[in-house]
Amino acid sequence: MSKSDGSIPLNKNIKEPVFLDNKPKDGCGIVGVISKESVAYDIRYSLRVLQHRGQESAGIAVFNKGIKCCKGMGLVYEAISKEQMNELEGNVGIGHVRYSTAGSSTFENSQPVVVKTDVGEIALAHNGEIVNADALRKGLQKKGWAFATTTDSEIIIRLLANEISTTGDVIKAIKSLMGKLVGSYSLVVLIEDRLVAVRDSFAFKPLCIGKFKNGYMVSSESVVFDTLGGTFMRDLKPGEIVELMGDSIRSTMTSSPKNHAHCMFEWVYFARPDSVIEGRLVYDVRREIGKTLAKEHPVDADVVIPVPDSGRAHALGYYEGSGIPYGEGLMKNRYIERTFIMPQQEDREMSVVLKLNPIQPVVDGKRVVLADDSIVRGTTMRKIVQLLRNAGAKEVHVRIGSPPIRAPCYFGIDMKTRDQFAATDRTVEQIAELITADTLGYISLEGLIKAIGRPSKDLCLGCLTGEYPIRIPGEKVRFQKQIDVF
Amino acid sequence: MSKSDGSIPLNKNIKEPVFLDNKPKDGCGIVGVISKESVAYDIRYSLRVLQHRGQESAGIAVFNKGIKCCKGMGLVYEAISKEQMNELEGNVGIGHVRYSTAGSSTFENSQPVVVKTDVGEIALAHNGEIVNADALRKGLQKKGWAFATTTDSEIIIRLLANEISTTGDVIKAIKSLMGKLVGSYSLVVLIEDRLVAVRDSFAFKPLCIGKFKNGYMVSSESVVFDTLGGTFMRDLKPGEIVELMGDSIRSTMTSSPKNHAHCMFEWVYFARPDSVIEGRLVYDVRREIGKTLAKEHPVDADVVIPVPDSGRAHALGYYEGSGIPYGEGLMKNRYIERTFIMPQQEDREMSVVLKLNPIQPVVDGKRVVLADDSIVRGTTMRKIVQLLRNAGAKEVHVRIGSPPIRAPCYFGIDMKTRDQFAATDRTVEQIAELITADTLGYISLEGLIKAIGRPSKDLCLGCLTGEYPIRIPGEKVRFQKQIDVF
Amino acid sequence: MSKSDGSIPLNKNIKEPVFLDNKPKDGCGIVGVISKESVAYDIRYSLRVLQHRGQESAGIAVFNKGIKCCKGMGLVYEAISKEQMNELEGNVGIGHVRYSTAGSSTFENSQPVVVKTDVGEIALAHNGEIVNADALRKGLQKKGWAFATTTDSEIIIRLLANEISTTGDVIKAIKSLMGKLVGSYSLVVLIEDRLVAVRDSFAFKPLCIGKFKNGYMVSSESVVFDTLGGTFMRDLKPGEIVELMGDSIRSTMTSSPKNHAHCMFEWVYFARPDSVIEGRLVYDVRREIGKTLAKEHPVDADVVIPVPDSGRAHALGYYEGSGIPYGEGLMKNRYIERTFIMPQQEDREMSVVLKLNPIQPVVDGKRVVLADDSIVRGTTMRKIVQLLRNAGAKEVHVRIGSPPIRAPCYFGIDMKTRDQFAATDRTVEQIAELITADTLGYISLEGLIKAIGRPSKDLCLGCLTGEYPIRIPGEKVRFQKQIDVF
Amino acid sequence: MSKSDGSIPLNKNIKEPVFLDNKPKDGCGIVGVISKESVAYDIRYSLRVLQHRGQESAGIAVFNKGIKCCKGMGLVYEAISKEQMNELEGNVGIGHVRYSTAGSSTFENSQPVVVKTDVGEIALAHNGEIVNADALRKGLQKKGWAFATTTDSEIIIRLLANEISTTGDVIKAIKSLMGKLVGSYSLVVLIEDRLVAVRDSFAFKPLCIGKFKNGYMVSSESVVFDTLGGTFMRDLKPGEIVELMGDSIRSTMTSSPKNHAHCMFEWVYFARPDSVIEGRLVYDVRREIGKTLAKEHPVDADVVIPVPDSGRAHALGYYEGSGIPYGEGLMKNRYIERTFIMPQQEDREMSVVLKLNPIQPVVDGKRVVLADDSIVRGTTMRKIVQLLRNAGAKEVHVRIGSPPIRAPCYFGIDMKTRDQFAATDRTVEQIAELITADTLGYISLEGLIKAIGRPSKDLCLGCLTGEYPIRIPGEKVRFQKQIDVF
Repeated sequence: MSKSDGSIPLNKNIKEPVFLDNKPKDGCGIVGVISKESVAYDIRYSLRVLQHRGQESAGIAVFNKGIKCCKGMGLVYEAISKEQMNELEGNVGIGHVRYSTAGSSTFENSQPVVVKTDVGEIALAHNGEIVNADALRKGLQKKGWAFATTTDSEIIIRLLANEISTTGDVIKAIKSLMGKLVGSYSLVVLIEDRLVAVRDSFAFKPLCIGKFKNGYMVSSESVVFDTLGGTFMRDLKPGEIVELMGDSIRSTMTSSPKNHAHCMFEWVYFARPDSVIEGRLVYDVRREIGKTLAKEHPVDADVVIPVPDSGRAHALGYYEGSGIPYGEGLMKNRYIERTFIMPQQEDREMSVVLKLNPIQPVVDGKRVVLADDSIVRGTTMRKIVQLLRNAGAKEVHVRIGSPPIRAPCYFGIDMKTRDQFAATDRTVEQIAELITADTLGYISLEGLIKAIGRPSKDLCLGCLTGEYPIRIPGEKVRFQKQIDVF
Repeated sequence: MSKSDGSIPLNKNIKEPVFLDNKPKDGCGIVGVISKESVAYDIRYSLRVLQHRGQESAGIAVFNKGIKCCKGMGLVYEAISKEQMNELEGNVGIGHVRYSTAGSSTFENSQPVVVKTDVGEIALAHNGEIVNADALRKGLQKKGWAFATTTDSEIIIRLLANEISTTGDVIKAIKSLMGKLVGSYSLVVLIEDRLVAVRDSFAFKPLCIGKFKNGYMVSSESVVFDTLGGTFMRDLKPGEIVELMGDSIRSTMTSSPKNHAHCMFEWVYFARPDSVIEGRLVYDVRREIGKTLAKEHPVDADVVIPVPDSGRAHALGYYEGSGIPYGEGLMKNRYIERTFIMPQQEDREMSVVLKLNPIQPVVDGKRVVLADDSIVRGTTMRKIVQLLRNAGAKEVHVRIGSPPIRAPCYFGIDMKTRDQFAATDRTVEQIAELITADTLGYISLEGLIKAIGRPSKDLCLGCLTGEYPIRIPGEKVRFQKQIDVF
Repeated sequence: MSKSDGSIPLNKNIKEPVFLDNKPKDGCGIVGVISKESVAYDIRYSLRVLQHRGQESAGIAVFNKGIKCCKGMGLVYEAISKEQMNELEGNVGIGHVRYSTAGSSTFENSQPVVVKTDVGEIALAHNGEIVNADALRKGLQKKGWAFATTTDSEIIIRLLANEISTTGDVIKAIKSLMGKLVGSYSLVVLIEDRLVAVRDSFAFKPLCIGKFKNGYMVSSESVVFDTLGGTFMRDLKPGEIVELMGDSIRSTMTSSPKNHAHCMFEWVYFARPDSVIEGRLVYDVRREIGKTLAKEHPVDADVVIPVPDSGRAHALGYYEGSGIPYGEGLMKNRYIERTFIMPQQEDREMSVVLKLNPIQPVVDGKRVVLADDSIVRGTTMRKIVQLLRNAGAKEVHVRIGSPPIRAPCYFGIDMKTRDQFAATDRTVEQIAELITADTLGYISLEGLIKAIGRPSKDLCLGCLTGEYPIRIPGEKVRFQKQIDVF
Repeated sequence: MSKSDGSIPLNKNIKEPVFLDNKPKDGCGIVGVISKESVAYDIRYSLRVLQHRGQESAGIAVFNKGIKCCKGMGLVYEAISKEQMNELEGNVGIGHVRYSTAGSSTFENSQPVVVKTDVGEIALAHNGEIVNADALRKGLQKKGWAFATTTDSEIIIRLLANEISTTGDVIKAIKSLMGKLVGSYSLVVLIEDRLVAVRDSFAFKPLCIGKFKNGYMVSSESVVFDTLGGTFMRDLKPGEIVELMGDSIRSTMTSSPKNHAHCMFEWVYFARPDSVIEGRLVYDVRREIGKTLAKEHPVDADVVIPVPDSGRAHALGYYEGSGIPYGEGLMKNRYIERTFIMPQQEDREMSVVLKLNPIQPVVDGKRVVLADDSIVRGTTMRKIVQLLRNAGAKEVHVRIGSPPIRAPCYFGIDMKTRDQFAATDRTVEQIAELITADTLGYISLEGLIKAIGRPSKDLCLGCLTGEYPIRIPGEKVRFQKQIDVF
C-alpha cells in the first residue's frame, strides 16, 4: 500500500460473483465462551443457532493445556462429529461458521485458524473483510514472510502473533494490530487460555457480550444468549477490545472515528429476526420497514404476502401498516436449502420452482403485494412474479425493504461488481419492467435509516449510495474527514 | 389369518414409537412418469417436491431394455448421485421417498423394490401399510416362500409377480393382488415398460394423475404437476387401477366399499399446503380449520401466531376468522431439520430450543393465540408454551387443528401405541395443564369434517375416534357392515 | 432346460471376461463356526486368512435369537466396521469373501444371503457355480417366483427354504436341493442356530472341517485352522452334508458319482500354499510340479526365478529338481494389489511395470528359467519376459505349472470364452513366440496329475482337456457314463 | 540453540514409539519431474513405486500459472482421486508419500507444503529430520513468527521463503537455508516453475537424478526411473543443490564435511532391492550380507528360509554362501498389510499369526536357518520362531542382516528411545534366549560395512554404535573433528 497516493490495490483475484438465490452473501458467525464447565457443546449449540450466517464450514477450538481445534466442511452437525466433540474438552473456547459460495469453498479456508507462537498457541475466528489484506500480505512477503493461504484471517493471526511476541502484551498487541488492519472485523481470539473479543472501530459487523452460566459469552448475534439460557449484556463498542474472564470482563477502548458504519444489511436481511443489534430487535426493524413501505408505496390490493422466509417480517409490517390482509401465497420447499447437483443451466433455472410454489387461492384473482428484503440481480424476483401471475394473480406489486443496490460491498458481503445489479443503469420503472411487476416500490434511504433507528452517519450504506466509510480506490468516500483514515 | 374369528395377528415387532419433533410420521411419497423423453430428472425433481413425505431414503427405477434402479439413504440429493442419474436413461420410470424414523432406517427398506420374473422385471413403490402383512407372509412362508426383508413392499411385489405369472395378465393380476391385500396402499408399478398406478379400495393414501409433457405422471400429491409444468387431471378413484401409456391412460375399476377412508391427516398435516387432495386444496382446508377454531374456541387476545411451519395456515385462518392480528412470534432455525448427534437426553431437550426461539416484541405483554395442527405427546407443545411465557406472553391460548389423538394408526402413520398420547386418559383441561396453556381448544370432529369438506363416512378418523374402517383385532370397527371386509 | 436333449441352456448374459493380471479368477471363500463363545471375530479372522479367495466384498452372519448379517464392499477390514462387529454377537455363524472382477461388483451380489422363512431365518454362503441356474430360475419364475437378483446364491437359498418348508426336515431338504442343483457348490448354511456344511457330489470346490476351541469350524481351506489355533479334521466327502453342533458333528451322505471332479486349479494357483486339499499340501504339489517341469523340460541355465508370488513354489521345485541356482529376479510392488484409477489403456499397460521390476544382477547376462503357474492370455507373461530381456537376460526359458488352458470353465472360474486363451489355435511354439520366450515348457497333463497325487478320474480338467465331468451343451463329456447325471 | 554449550534441545514431545511389525519406520519418499508434457501422472506413478517408503498420506503439487496441490490420507490411489488428477495440469511438479504411524497421522502433516511469498508460490517435499527444528522454531517465534504446525517441513519452507525474499536469489537462499538446518534432509522444491533438489551435506537420505522423457526427474530411489522408462544419471552429492530445467541441469555445491553419513538402513531394509544407492544395488548388498552371515555364523542346517518379504535377499545370500538349500517356510498373507481394527490387545497379538503361517513340510523335522534384516524389540521374531517350532522345526537358527540396534535414531527413523530395544542391556545370547532361538547371529559391523561397500566414515551407524555424525546432547559424537559442525 503506497502512502503516496493513499490507494489500496484491489484484489485482482475476485471471481465472478455467485449469487445463489440472488441473495447477498455475508460471511461468518463467531462465538466465544468462558465458563467453569466444559464449553464445547455450548459452542456447538451456539454455532447451530448462528448457522444462518454460514453453511460452508464450521470449527471449534478450545483450550486445555494446549489448543485443540476441530473443523470440517458443511453444516455444524456434518462438520464436527461426536467423536471429535469428545476430544474438545476445555473451559474456554471459540467457534466459527463460514458461508457457502459454490465452488470456492475449501477446507483450508475454514476457521478457527490456529498458530503456535513464542507465547503459546493462538486461535482466531473472524467475521468481516480486510480491505488492505493484499497490501498487508505483500508488505509482509517483502519482509520474507510466507503464507499458507490467501485468507484475511491468516494475515490477522500472523500479524497478531508477531505483535504479541514483540510487545509481550496481548492488549497492546491487539491495539497495534488494529492500527494496521483496514476494513471490517469482528474477532474472537484465544491466546492460550485467554479469551478476547475485538470489534473494528467502525463496528461494521455485529458482536455482543452475554453473561452465561458461570462465565461469559461473546457472539455475532444476541439470539445465541436467548437460546442457550444466557443474558444479553451489550454490544461491543466500536474499537473496543474485551477480555472475558471467568468472573469479570475487562474492556479496553481504542480510538474510533466519530462516525461508525454498522452494516445496514444485518437488520434488513442477514441477522435472525430474534436478534438485537445496536439496541434494535431485527424483527422490529423489518416490521417498521414494512410499515414504512406501506406509507411510502401504498397500493390498492387484496393481500400482502412475503417471499418466504426472507420477506416475512417486512410483509407483516406492510400488512399492519396498510390494513391489507396478510396471507401466505408462496410455499417454500424446506429441503431445497442446499443443492449440489445442478448439471445443466436448465437445472439451475429449475431450482427456483423447486423451492417456491404458489398457493393458488391466496393469489388467484387477487391484487397481490409481494414483500421481500432486497433485489440484487432481479432474476429470482422475476421468476417469483411470474409464478404468481401463472397462479392467477391479477396484479403483483413488489415492495422491497431496502433501497436499490447499486454499488459493490468491500466489507464482507459477496457483491463485488456493479455489472450484475438490476439497479445498475436502470430506473425503478425499468426494474419493475425487468421483474414484470405492476408496480415496484423500494423503501427510501431516509425511510430505511429511520426504521433502523440509528443515525445515518453511523451506518454503512455504501452498496446503496456508492459512498463508503473508508476510502476505496476509484470509489467515493462518505465524509471528507475520513479520507485520512489510512 | 384365521377365518374363524376374522382376527389379524398384530405385529409383535412393533417398536417403541419415535415421535421425532412430536409429530406423527407418515410414510413415503411416490411418483411415476411416462414420456417420449428421458424421465429420470423428472422423477428426481418430483421426489424433491415430495421430499416432505420422507427423508430417510430415496430411489428411482427406469426401464430401458431392463429395469435400472438406484437407491440410497438420506435426502434425494444425497441418495442418488449425478453419476447414478446418468445411468438412469429411460422413457418410463418410478420413484420413491421414504420417511425417517431414528434407528430403524436401513438400506434394505428403501424403495423401489425390483424383482426378476417370468414376464420380465417388475419395480414397485408403495405408500401405505398392509394390515395383514404378517398373515400374508406367514401364509406364503408356509407354502415355502422365503423373504429377504420384513417389509410390506416385498410381500406386495412377490405376490404381484406370482399373480402375473399365473394369470399372464397384468390387470387381472393386480385385481387378484388387491383381493388379498388388506390395508392402505397407493402403488406405482413398472412391469418392464408398462407403468401402472393402483389405489386401494378405501383410498387411504392420496394418488393423482397428471398430464405431463408428451406423456403422463402419477404422484402422491398434485403439487408435483404444478412444479414440473404438468397439468393435474384427477385423483385415482378408490380401487382404481390406471395404466399410463404414452398417449392415453386406461382405467380399470375394482369393487370398492360404499364408504371410503381418506386419511384426514393428509389435509391436517402431511400434505403440502399447495396440494389438492380429493378436490380440496390443503391450504384452504387448513385455513378453514383455523376459521372454525376461531368460532369454536374464541378468545380475547392480542395476536395469533403459528408454530412454524406446521401451524401457519391454521393460524392465518384463525386470524381471518377472529380478526385478532396475525404475527410471527416464533423464529424457526432452518438448519435444525435433521439432527443426528444427540449424545445425552439433555441434548434432545435442547433440540426444541435450538429449533424455535420467541420473537419477544410480538408476544411480550401480549395475550397470545398459538396455533398448530395436532398434539401427540404434548412435550414439545409444553416447551413452546414455556418459551412464549419466558418471552413475556401474558396468556397463551393453544388452538389445535385436529381433535385429540386417542388411538393408534394401523394404516401407515407411525403412532402405534396408546400409552404416549397426551389425550389418553386426560380431559382437554388436563392436557391444557400438561402443556401449561391458559386455554386449549381442539377443533371438533364435526368442525374438522366440515373443513375438509368430505362426508365423514369417506374419511378415516380412526386415530381420533378409535373406530376403524377395517376391522382390527381388539379395536372397534367404524360401520357394522364393514366387518366382513376380510 | 429341454428334457428332449438333456441340454442346459448356456448363460447368454456372460460378459466379456476380465482377466485382471491375466490370472484366472475363482470365486469366494466360505467359513462357518460354532462354539461356546462369541464367534464373530473368529469368522472375521478366518475371512482375513481366506482373503486371497476374494477381495470384492465380505460378510458375516451370526445367530442370536435371530440372524444378524453385516456385509460390505472391499477387503474384510473395509467391509465390516468395528461398530458392526460389536453387533454381531452369537455362538454360531458363517462368513464369506467374494472375488473381484472390475465393474460387475455390486452390493447386491455380496454374501451371506439371508431369508426369512416359515421355519425361521436362513443364511447361506456359497462357493461355486450352478450350471443350471438359468434353467432353475426360469422354471421357478414360470411357477410365479420372483427374484431380487440374478445370483446363483439366491436360487439356492430360495429353493432350500422351499424344501425345508415342504419337508419340515433340514437334512431331507438339503438332499432334495442337491438333487436339483447341477454344478459346483460348497455351502455353509445357518438355519436359525443350526450350522450345516454341504459339498456337491463331484466335490469341485474345497471344504474341510476342523475342531476349534469349544466347537467346530468349516472352511474353504485348512490354513484357517492352523492360523486360528484349531485342528484340521478332514475334507468333506463328495456329496456329504455335515451338521456341526457344539459337541459333535453329524454326517449324512448323498449319492455321489463314482468319479469326482476336484478343480485342479486349487492346487496350481487358487489355494494358499500352506493349505492341505484332499490330503495334499498345496505347497508340496507346487514344488512337485516344479520338479516335474525340471524333468520334462530341462534346460541349461544360470538361475531359476519365479513370477512373484504365484510362481514361487513352482520355481523352488524347479531349482530343487534341476540343481540350477535359485534367485529372485523380479521385485513385486506390494502396494499395487488393487488399482482403481486406470483412465486410459496406457495406464492399464502401466500396471504391469508398476507391479513388477527386474533386479538386474540376478538376470543380467544370465540364462534365466522363469516359472509361473499358468498362462491365460499371455500378455502379462510377454511383458515380463521383455522386462527380463531389458534387464540383460541372455535367454528366458518359461516353465508353466499347468498344461495349456484351452477351454472355458463352467464351474466357478472366470474364464468363459475360448477366444482369448493364448493356447487357442496356437502350438506351444507359437505361444513361445507370442510371449517372446526362448523356450516354453508346460507341464504335461500326466505330470500334473501325478504331482497332485490324485487319480485323474477324480479331477476336473475341463479347461485343459475340453472334456467336462458334467455334460455342457456343445462341449464334450469326460466319461460316457456320466451323460446321465442330469 | 545456544552456542555456549553446543547443545540441541531435545524434542520433549516425543511420543512412545510405535513399532508396528517391530520394523523401524523411515519417513517419506519424494519425487520431482520437469518435462515438456503434463507430469501429474508421472508423479503419481513415481509415488506408487515409492509407496513402500510411506503409506500414511500422499500429495502432488504442480505448477501451471500458480501451484496447484492435492493431498490426502492413505495410499496414493486412495489419497488423490481421478477428479483431482485432472486438475493437476502442469509441466513441472513434485510429489511426496509419508509413512504411517498409528494415531499421529493427520492431514496437517501431509506434504507437499505450499506457501505464497513475495516471489510467488513455493512447494516443498522433505525426507529426513531436522535435529534443531525446535531450536529454530523457538528462535523464529521469538522474532514473532507464528507456525501453523509442529512439522519440520513448515520450518524449512518458511525459512526458505524468507531467504529467497531477502536474497532475491533462489540458489543463494537455499545455501543460506542449508547453513541453518542441522539434520538430515533430502528436498525437492518448486519455486513457481523452477524445480530444485537439495541433499544435506552428510547425505543421510538418498536422492538421485534421472533423465526422463523430454526432461529430468529427481527421486528418493532409482527404481522410479527404471519403472517409468527414465535413465538413472547419478546420486546428488552431499551438500549439492541441483536445479532441473527442461533441457539441462545446473549443479551448485555447498561445503560438505570430509566424511558423510549415508543411513546404512537404506541398504539393509528401507529401500527397494531393485534400487541403486550410492552406486550399490540394494539387492546385491543384502545378498552380500547374507553371504557374510554364512561365513560369520555358519551352522549345520537343512534349509535356509527368509522372513518374507524383508529377509528374502539376505536368506538367498546365506543360501548361496552356505550351500544349505533355500526354501520358503513362511507364507505371508498379502492382505494384512494395513490393519486398522484392533480393538483389544489380543487382536494385536493376532496380527502376527494372521500375517505369517508356516509351511510345514519345509520346516518339519528340519534344522532351519531363518534370515531377516534386523531385530528391534524382538517380540515379532520370538513369535515367528515359535511358529516354526510349532510346525515341527527341530532347530531354529536366526541370522540377522544388521548388528544389534542399541541406540536411538535422530535423523529420520522412528526409533527414539533405548528402553525398548531387545539389545539394550542384553548380550546376543540373552537375545537368543528372548526370541527362543537355538542360535542367533548378527552380522558384524565390519561385515556390514564391507557388504555395503562404502567406507565406514561415510556411513551413519549411530543406531548401532551410539556415535553420531552430528553432536546430539547426551550422545557421543562419531569423530572429534565434527564437534564443531554446529
